[in-house]
Amino acid sequence: MTIYDWFDGPYPARVRIAIAEKNLQSQVRFESINLWTGEHKTPAFLAKNYSGTLPVLELDDGSLIAECTAITEYLDHLEGPPTLTGRTSFEKGTIHMMSRRAELELLDAISVYFHHATPGLGPEVELYQNAEWGVRQRDRAMRAMGYFDALLKTQPYIAGTEFSMADITVIGAFIFAAIVQLEVPAHYTALHAWHGRMQERPSVQAWNRMVEETRAAA
Amino acid sequence: MTIYDWFDGPYPARVRIAIAEKNLQSQVRFESINLWTGEHKTPAFLAKNYSGTLPVLELDDGSLIAECTAITEYLDHLEGPPTLTGRTSFEKGTIHMMSRRAELELLDAISVYFHHATPGLGPEVELYQNAEWGVRQRDRAMRAMGYFDALLKTQPYIAGTEFSMADITVIGAFIFAAIVQLEVPAHYTALHAWHGRMQERPSVQAWNRMVEETRAAA
Ligand SMILES: N[C@@H](CCC(=O)N[C@@H](CS)C(=O)NCC(=O)O)C(=O)O
Ligand SMILES: N[C@@H](CCC(=O)N[C@@H](CS)C(=O)NCC(=O)O)C(=O)O
Repeated sequence: MTIYDWFDGPYPARVRIAIAEKNLQSQVRFESINLWTGEHKTPAFLAKNYSGTLPVLELDDGSLIAECTAITEYLDHLEGPPTLTGRTSFEKGTIHMMSRRAELELLDAISVYFHHATPGLGPEVELYQNAEWGVRQRDRAMRAMGYFDALLKTQPYIAGTEFSMADITVIGAFIFAAIVQLEVPAHYTALHAWHGRMQERPSVQAWNRMVEETRAAA
Repeated sequence: MTIYDWFDGPYPARVRIAIAEKNLQSQVRFESINLWTGEHKTPAFLAKNYSGTLPVLELDDGSLIAECTAITEYLDHLEGPPTLTGRTSFEKGTIHMMSRRAELELLDAISVYFHHATPGLGPEVELYQNAEWGVRQRDRAMRAMGYFDALLKTQPYIAGTEFSMADITVIGAFIFAAIVQLEVPAHYTALHAWHGRMQERPSVQAWNRMVEETRAAA
């Protein structure tokens, strides 16, 4: 399998962490698409993903799967533990709800803020910006931090009692928040404690190390 | 199970059609949340769904599942055919990709247009509007119609050779397009032919009939 992505992108991180959780590293090669030069908006890449976003998974037969949730569903149903998207219908429903909510309210909101109310990927790539909308989405993300903090006061993981795809989505949101320098308020202690526990996972440590090394080599 | 929704809402339609496809009608009761008076933005309803949107599924033990994709995942993994979210990892990945793409590029885009660049649910409910963003999303949706038309020239269903959740998402988009009077251009013949085939499904016919009868009774 080939994953087209950019090494330190927050959405690519979701798939890279899922791959590490599933222990599939040896089955995947990564090919860089340079976000900063707008390589994801070229006709060649748009033919792989109509939406022009990273990551995209290409299977050995040439089939393409875009969208983090979809790629995670694919990887999670290859053989082998753990389960990231749930076993029972209740788990599947809850994990998909919480992951989608984490996108809508947090990760996607921060992404819109980045692309619309900051320089984003620069003037050559950000051909249209709507700063007012971007700021609204930033405020939406800040509110959602309070929601997730309250949730994590009642349960250890985003979708309940087990680590899942939904935790990975919120990890992606923290990665994007750091890039755009949105601070998670210190009084959200449950959210910070959860994030501290996430940083102890080998999958997240491997991602942090890879980013550090790649940046140092550049 | 209880579904909180509004009878002719395009997102609620996705879940109602999924329920009919799965033959689960007898297991579900519907409770109305009036979108036009903003009942979905009251504290009581926000406690059920942080995002303040319909539909929401409540299980008999009080558990709540929001988000159409998540509700469909839940329903699809109760016993009984057909399968709406795929059997193999490839099917699951492809169906989730196409359903998400249909949201991002089509259904959600039309929804943003409705809420931001038209009167939407009225001034009491639409407390913030960004018309420029709404119009952009309308244009995005119009472009996506071309994408889905081209796709349907090569395969009978949105995610490939079988009916799935992804078709239901695009059906939802057609329902929303009709509400906001966005016409699907006549030259998108493959898209129109697909839509005609969808209108023959008992699940879609039942939905059309229910809406007609409810409107007539009002
Ligand atoms: N809905 C997509 C979003 C992916 C996304 O926005 N990826 C970023 C990279 S971190 C991207 O490609 N941004 C480029 C752009 O929007 O111009 C997913 O879940 O995969
Ligand atoms: N992401 C949600 C979107 C649901 C949605 O937007 N539903 C509409 C009803 S058709 C709604 O509640 N709109 C009210 C609003 O946004 O104010 C889902 O997939 O369930």
